[in-house]
Amino acid sequence: MAPRPQVIALEEHYLDAEVKPHMAGPDAAAGAGRVAALLDDVGQGRIADMDAAGIDIQVLSHGAPSIQKIADAALAVRLAQGANDRLAETVRAHPDRFAAFAMLPTADPNAAADELERAVTRLGFKGAMVHGLAGGRFLDDRRFWPIFERAQALDVPLYMHPAVPHPAVIDTYYREYAEKFPNLLRAAWGFTVETATQGIRLVLSGIFDHYPRLKIILGHLGEGLPFYLWRINMALTRDGAGPSWFRDAFCEHFWVTTSGFFSDPALLCCMLELGADRILFSVDYPFVENAPGTAWMERAQLSAEDKAKILSGNAKRLLKM
Amino acid sequence: MAPRPQVIALEEHYLDAEVKPHMAGPDAAAGAGRVAALLDDVGQGRIADMDAAGIDIQVLSHGAPSIQKIADAALAVRLAQGANDRLAETVRAHPDRFAAFAMLPTADPNAAADELERAVTRLGFKGAMVHGLAGGRFLDDRRFWPIFERAQALDVPLYMHPAVPHPAVIDTYYREYAEKFPNLLRAAWGFTVETATQGIRLVLSGIFDHYPRLKIILGHLGEGLPFYLWRINMALTRDGAGPSWFRDAFCEHFWVTTSGFFSDPALLCCMLELGADRILFSVDYPFVENAPGTAWMERAQLSAEDKAKILSGNAKRLLKM
Amino acid sequence: MAPRPQVIALEEHYLDAEVKPHMAGPDAAAGAGRVAALLDDVGQGRIADMDAAGIDIQVLSHGAPSIQKIADAALAVRLAQGANDRLAETVRAHPDRFAAFAMLPTADPNAAADELERAVTRLGFKGAMVHGLAGGRFLDDRRFWPIFERAQALDVPLYMHPAVPHPAVIDTYYREYAEKFPNLLRAAWGFTVETATQGIRLVLSGIFDHYPRLKIILGHLGEGLPFYLWRINMALTRDGAGPSWFRDAFCEHFWVTTSGFFSDPALLCCMLELGADRILFSVDYPFVENAPGTAWMERAQLSAEDKAKILSGNAKRLLKM
Amino acid sequence: MAPRPQVIALEEHYLDAEVKPHMAGPDAAAGAGRVAALLDDVGQGRIADMDAAGIDIQVLSHGAPSIQKIADAALAVRLAQGANDRLAETVRAHPDRFAAFAMLPTADPNAAADELERAVTRLGFKGAMVHGLAGGRFLDDRRFWPIFERAQALDVPLYMHPAVPHPAVIDTYYREYAEKFPNLLRAAWGFTVETATQGIRLVLSGIFDHYPRLKIILGHLGEGLPFYLWRINMALTRDGAGPSWFRDAFCEHFWVTTSGFFSDPALLCCMLELGADRILFSVDYPFVENAPGTAWMERAQLSAEDKAKILSGNAKRLLKM
Repeated sequence: MAPRPQVIALEEHYLDAEVKPHMAGPDAAAGAGRVAALLDDVGQGRIADMDAAGIDIQVLSHGAPSIQKIADAALAVRLAQGANDRLAETVRAHPDRFAAFAMLPTADPNAAADELERAVTRLGFKGAMVHGLAGGRFLDDRRFWPIFERAQALDVPLYMHPAVPHPAVIDTYYREYAEKFPNLLRAAWGFTVETATQGIRLVLSGIFDHYPRLKIILGHLGEGLPFYLWRINMALTRDGAGPSWFRDAFCEHFWVTTSGFFSDPALLCCMLELGADRILFSVDYPFVENAPGTAWMERAQLSAEDKAKILSGNAKRLLKM
Repeated sequence: MAPRPQVIALEEHYLDAEVKPHMAGPDAAAGAGRVAALLDDVGQGRIADMDAAGIDIQVLSHGAPSIQKIADAALAVRLAQGANDRLAETVRAHPDRFAAFAMLPTADPNAAADELERAVTRLGFKGAMVHGLAGGRFLDDRRFWPIFERAQALDVPLYMHPAVPHPAVIDTYYREYAEKFPNLLRAAWGFTVETATQGIRLVLSGIFDHYPRLKIILGHLGEGLPFYLWRINMALTRDGAGPSWFRDAFCEHFWVTTSGFFSDPALLCCMLELGADRILFSVDYPFVENAPGTAWMERAQLSAEDKAKILSGNAKRLLKM
Repeated sequence: MAPRPQVIALEEHYLDAEVKPHMAGPDAAAGAGRVAALLDDVGQGRIADMDAAGIDIQVLSHGAPSIQKIADAALAVRLAQGANDRLAETVRAHPDRFAAFAMLPTADPNAAADELERAVTRLGFKGAMVHGLAGGRFLDDRRFWPIFERAQALDVPLYMHPAVPHPAVIDTYYREYAEKFPNLLRAAWGFTVETATQGIRLVLSGIFDHYPRLKIILGHLGEGLPFYLWRINMALTRDGAGPSWFRDAFCEHFWVTTSGFFSDPALLCCMLELGADRILFSVDYPFVENAPGTAWMERAQLSAEDKAKILSGNAKRLLKM
Repeated sequence: MAPRPQVIALEEHYLDAEVKPHMAGPDAAAGAGRVAALLDDVGQGRIADMDAAGIDIQVLSHGAPSIQKIADAALAVRLAQGANDRLAETVRAHPDRFAAFAMLPTADPNAAADELERAVTRLGFKGAMVHGLAGGRFLDDRRFWPIFERAQALDVPLYMHPAVPHPAVIDTYYREYAEKFPNLLRAAWGFTVETATQGIRLVLSGIFDHYPRLKIILGHLGEGLPFYLWRINMALTRDGAGPSWFRDAFCEHFWVTTSGFFSDPALLCCMLELGADRILFSVDYPFVENAPGTAWMERAQLSAEDKAKILSGNAKRLLKM
């Protein structure tokens, strides 16, 4: 039998004790009860949970919205440095079980670029994760391009994670059902829409012309964009885009993970639109449990080669692990 | 060789001469140039175009936003009655080539329900189409339920078509790119998000508990919802929904069309999530050309039985044609 | 949640006490050990096993090669009548758990046709199953057409089940590995090749022109023919067949079951080539265990509607249950 | 737009003038009429046909049965050396348009191994092709293992091409329909069965334990074996094989080409079972026309990355081009 491939998961969250008090409002709700305890544990409990499900390595990242809503740049920079240092400690304690994505103080894009560099070159981080809008702005805004420029220079990916959507959109689209179905704002739909919109806007911004080796990761099977590629691409050609401009940019610069989305039909759609080389296993722990994720992959009737790519091979190449 | 199946297309638009002047602002842009001329032609030119592409029947509907943004209820009712009467004339002139979805004056929900009944029972219409938010409100709002109640009583489907999104969402999500990429608000993304949101809200509203035989059509391969079914369903169970509550409601009450979305991977995803019985061929003429649609189906390597269902069999059952 | 669909399995075997002594040689090996005991049990043990796996109804059929290798026509007729009568008793004892496919004395084709009619009209059987070559001949031989004619007249399907291949083919293709891998002659390959060949020969014989409402069932996901449809069809057009002659004949006259073949990629291929309406759940009990079959279907990420068709809806229509 | 990938085709035939007279009987029929002329042309006509269809490189190989039926070992060796030398000339005349698979005199396995080495090291060939049974024997027979040993040592693949099946199988399975449907023996079915059987026998023989880096190419989408993997693997475990012994051996040692099999469902099945890295574009020219092959790939809604792999990337890696 083919050797069991290593399993690396990329969208696995924890909360930093000093950052947590700065996350308020609706976002704080995410980490309640049992999940809250799991978010705080980056030691034996987490590792035991990984072992039970057959996960070898978690690439750790902070929970949403991280520091993306903190307007005070100096505070954000200080929080990021401290949190990244502490996360580096966590990784150093279990270097064979953990790796890390950096927290970035997007309130000061140049400082964020510097912190990305420090995290990658000094702390050995594998890239960075940002969580939803940064100070209410999409990341394709020119003010944030220094971050992308540095990511390209360092050849590390940026993971675009969702956060609770912009209040105007909540008010317009979700308000009436938000109390009964709080996840409507989150994993059920609001996360998806805003993060997919972020992905589209990155392409429209032309940033990939400026940074042609830029690498973006989207969770949740690409927030659905693989399904829409044909239609988005077609509609943009009506606006004068080249016949496969959007499709090519997306397929060249984006990788997607399976976080919180263990669907065979959706995975198949991603394999056809992006290819198995662009799909990376992830769980979204502790918001989603580990075991259903690895059980899904275990049962998935894919070739052993593609399964090994998805479970860790692609991550090793993309994150140079 | 199996006989060529009949081809029925369900999301095929025209503009009514008396309604058109009441559609202003960004929506008017949709019908410019060559497309504008095609929208006005419900006679020989349109039929010649259908013949050239092998389309037997168009189920005609007005273009977006139709009268859904008209706040003056009396005006809306008058426009709808006149437009539906004129559309009935169009169908009567070519009863073997055209059928119709009614225009509904949603500004007065009870009148809209009555007009739906008149259109179905007197004019022989096959259901109705609504275009985006009605007076800025999603259709799941209780005030609109009389329309759904009547649709169930008449056993006809309601087609939920997109329109240019709510201004607050344009302002938050799309504004910076709307000039260079006007379709970002429309077929490329804005249409999709708002209409998919409408679909989700219908389920969340509980309307299918009240009207358990209600039938909804979504265009554009279900606005992507088939791809997301696993994730939406999973996230809502965290909010206390039953383990397949969302999935079951969606799969029981929704049909999807291929309008403007000729993608094999997306079609495959829909076939797996909904089954071939729930997918109906459509083009979105004249915004999309007929020939690529029928050519796509012609080449699609599906069984002749499923292809016949998608091309017309499902429409005949759903629309009782 | 959608109600759990009924589960009907179509290729579920038993052995008749009076027929069994007449099955000799390599075929006898099939029913050894634990499987032999299960083959003999058409009562509480079998039903308990069905209950444990969630199977509501087994359509019972004899094990291969049944009486297809018996040359003495009078003996074959007598064995068939007795076995079918006893099988009818078994069904009568548990009419809500069992149905039956008849055993046919193919050594006397006219008597086989009469026995088919008796089994269907008097005993309530759902069709018949034949097992591999009949007296060394493929069933498309004209001498057997009276059986197909009667099946059409009765509107019941014939299930073409494999048996150990013709000795000349064993000697040419399998001999060197038959001792170490006895299943090479059987489920691993020999069964498949000969039964697929039988399916192809039926089309080539023109029998479907003579009996245009004839219905054939193939087990094991159509013995692979759905995969090959494009290529077989293409190659036969070089011999002057119409452009979709083979494909159309196969897709119109054949149904396939999942017996002993719980593969997602193969199932997907069948769904695309034949459509979900032509696929019927089966296990191949007791050669294959029930539980992996129903567990596979339970986990399969298909629409509830298609799953219900495959699990029982298609069987109910095809077998008029 | 992504640059158009290079297109390399691997199962593209010609006939050698000195070998041709030695191919007699039913095999000679393959090269009649228009096809016969195309088989003889390895110059401008062939290149013009490649240009018209967008094929950059053909890896040339002789037509079936090549010299696999020649029992006179000295003659076979002499024919192979001459034909390979002449084929090398053909490649040297158009080194950017042609590459080559060697002809092997399997009647003398050691000489065949030597000729393979000569062809690869002296003539720059990319591997070798054998056509059906060698002197009536399957290639897994131990007498042929020196050929496989040398292929492994040279790190070149062996392409297992079909030929008209063994007479005993023709007589048993195909005889009655062979006159009306000559392709029943060939591309429609007989080729497939015998070559798939060859593939299975290679695994059963244990040859991959002896030569763990051996590489085998099967045409015609793996002669269907990808579809059957689940079932073959399951059935062999009943004979004591490890739980994924057959599957792992097949997926590790085999590559498949699309020659003469332009089916989306079958391709999808192969992608799921083997992965896109193991699928190589081929046409089977001149028995199949070039243009439908490249048109099929052009339209296939796969990612650009996977398409580039299939069209040439995988060939470049496997054949070191």
